[in-house]
Amino acid sequence: MKRLAILGSTGSIGTQALDVVSSHPDLFRVEVLSAHSNTELLIAQARKYKPNAVVVTNDAKYETVKKALESEPVKVFAGQASLTEVVCWESVDIILGAIVGFAGLRSIYAAVDAGKRIALANKETLVVAGDLVMQRAAETGSVIIPVDSEHSAIFQCLVGEYHEAIEKVILTASGGPFRGKKPNFLVNVKASHALQHPNWTMGAKITIDSATLMNKGLEMIEAKWLFGLKNEQIDVIVHPQSAVHSFVQFTDGSLKAQAGIPDMKLPIQYALAYPQRLPNTFKRYDFKEFANLTFEEPDYKTFRNLALAKEAMFKGGNTPCVLNAANEVTVQAFLQNRVDFLEMSDIIEKTMAKVDFVAAPSFADYEYSDAEARKYAEELVKQSPLATH
Amino acid sequence: MKRLAILGSTGSIGTQALDVVSSHPDLFRVEVLSAHSNTELLIAQARKYKPNAVVVTNDAKYETVKKALESEPVKVFAGQASLTEVVCWESVDIILGAIVGFAGLRSIYAAVDAGKRIALANKETLVVAGDLVMQRAAETGSVIIPVDSEHSAIFQCLVGEYHEAIEKVILTASGGPFRGKKPNFLVNVKASHALQHPNWTMGAKITIDSATLMNKGLEMIEAKWLFGLKNEQIDVIVHPQSAVHSFVQFTDGSLKAQAGIPDMKLPIQYALAYPQRLPNTFKRYDFKEFANLTFEEPDYKTFRNLALAKEAMFKGGNTPCVLNAANEVTVQAFLQNRVDFLEMSDIIEKTMAKVDFVAAPSFADYEYSDAEARKYAEELVKQSPLATH
Repeated sequence: MKRLAILGSTGSIGTQALDVVSSHPDLFRVEVLSAHSNTELLIAQARKYKPNAVVVTNDAKYETVKKALESEPVKVFAGQASLTEVVCWESVDIILGAIVGFAGLRSIYAAVDAGKRIALANKETLVVAGDLVMQRAAETGSVIIPVDSEHSAIFQCLVGEYHEAIEKVILTASGGPFRGKKPNFLVNVKASHALQHPNWTMGAKITIDSATLMNKGLEMIEAKWLFGLKNEQIDVIVHPQSAVHSFVQFTDGSLKAQAGIPDMKLPIQYALAYPQRLPNTFKRYDFKEFANLTFEEPDYKTFRNLALAKEAMFKGGNTPCVLNAANEVTVQAFLQNRVDFLEMSDIIEKTMAKVDFVAAPSFADYEYSDAEARKYAEELVKQSPLATH
Repeated sequence: MKRLAILGSTGSIGTQALDVVSSHPDLFRVEVLSAHSNTELLIAQARKYKPNAVVVTNDAKYETVKKALESEPVKVFAGQASLTEVVCWESVDIILGAIVGFAGLRSIYAAVDAGKRIALANKETLVVAGDLVMQRAAETGSVIIPVDSEHSAIFQCLVGEYHEAIEKVILTASGGPFRGKKPNFLVNVKASHALQHPNWTMGAKITIDSATLMNKGLEMIEAKWLFGLKNEQIDVIVHPQSAVHSFVQFTDGSLKAQAGIPDMKLPIQYALAYPQRLPNTFKRYDFKEFANLTFEEPDYKTFRNLALAKEAMFKGGNTPCVLNAANEVTVQAFLQNRVDFLEMSDIIEKTMAKVDFVAAPSFADYEYSDAEARKYAEELVKQSPLATH
């Protein structure tokens, strides 16, 4: 029986993780649930899964949750600081980190520090502070299993292989809803278009990141830290059918790939159950449905966010942190129609140029760079013709 | 330093294995070379690689080889029986079994019996007597690493995985040069057409087997024994580009695949070096070259050899042995224009019906069934309009 802390339980990954738990009540038990603002769902989840504790990271919502659950045998905590405490509890075996964005970093780092096993869906943890997180994980023996479908694919391809046999990893990208489009089209794209991803059902932030290819850029940086790779060992190929979830190329020229239907429950289950594979009744891969798999180079010129992320990866230091912060700001602004699709890249690029470079940042440096980048990106958002309209 | 016995050193697999040895003189040394009739090449190989022994399995060619190598410090042996002795030598670490057909069985079994490590290219060993061979291997600790690209792919996908996590294996088939053709076309096909395989450069026997899809049928049976699978766990998908060399589907619905350029040196090197992967300068997989990968169901009705092999696998006992013997006879006859393409299946089917079924054959039973099947298949060949022409 593995006892889980699910951070971000009301989001897309969190709810699917709870489905996995429901399918295997003999294997998993929910010890902690946390959410930021969707109190209604959090309360319903707490009633259903009977965790030992729930954490509402948004202090303003604490009273609502506390009151609703007062007849339940559950502890209710408020705030980010509580989160960093509960993940260290003796009674927690696995932490599923499914909080979106920089906000997830502190609690995951606390879990790494405590030597916990982590199923990691929050990619910003590694994008922003991959060096610190992975170094600490090596010291404490914390094991990090990726939940992202691409990194889960790479992880699965690497079981039983030697690290020095890796030549490169090749992340597959669906190309998003605007694959093949050019800037003159993209300038008029609205959030509602971008939210219609062709293959995957995901949260709003990651869906926009998929449309801009920033998601793939963040994944490159995530892969670098997760698998201990050099920048040159990380590549991207566009594969619109999303059947192959990534490749590993080995030093003998052989490639391994992991494939499957695009369903996040698969990598979530894998991360929770590893090294076991749990039998399930998920729909099986159908070669008739995927009779034709295509692969093409990404268009770095049009999808500048991908080029900027790659640049940040090569530059290192606090640059990925700055990139990520500026991206979070621009994606929010784009969702609110305050900047257009192309301006997102402009703002990220300018923010990367503006914030002071730190070659070997501390945790505090990352937090400072993150705050600086957000401040500057917000200023740039305000100057957009759309924002001032 | 691993010391190799290369059985069938003058064939396609044997010569490519020697190329691998040449590329890694620090890792591999040739201890034994064997060939059946290509004495000229065998002599040249012996002079170049300086093995401790060479075996000429065709007794009639012994004197030629003995004389040619009299000034070399090499022992020369004749006959099949010598082969079963040298593979057991203390000085042999790995046996590469690359003899084509039933002829390879005795020597591989002797190596298994001696608990040796075997890189297995001779698929008939497992097709004919997989039950006996794998049982003996389990007893002696003999490790069998497949050289066939499909089985190598499956083997590579399975490293680090639990056996009980296998849901099924899916062998890829190029479909051969006559994919999409119907019987009215196939009846007029000549050996010269069939020898032009679209993707792989191989020996004549296996190239004809690829054209009839018998090769894939034999591989299904090989996979069954090699990976300890139930008949229902083995499937075939046609994939004309030969980029993906096979799939494993796991009980959680995830698939793993191994891919690479169609070059037999890759699986040969893997089998010799496992669990290491040796860096090499082979041409790398190029996504531009394989921009479009297609998958389709095999046509069991037209390519009856595949259906017959599958039937033999399910029937078990000595049936695969009979199938294999009849197939070896018909392929030879087809290469000599003594039967046509479609008659091959007729003869195999009739031979399978004719030879007495043995449910749990001994080694002697297999040899008897093999001889009976050959005798009967030869009779049927003689009745072909082409043979009597």
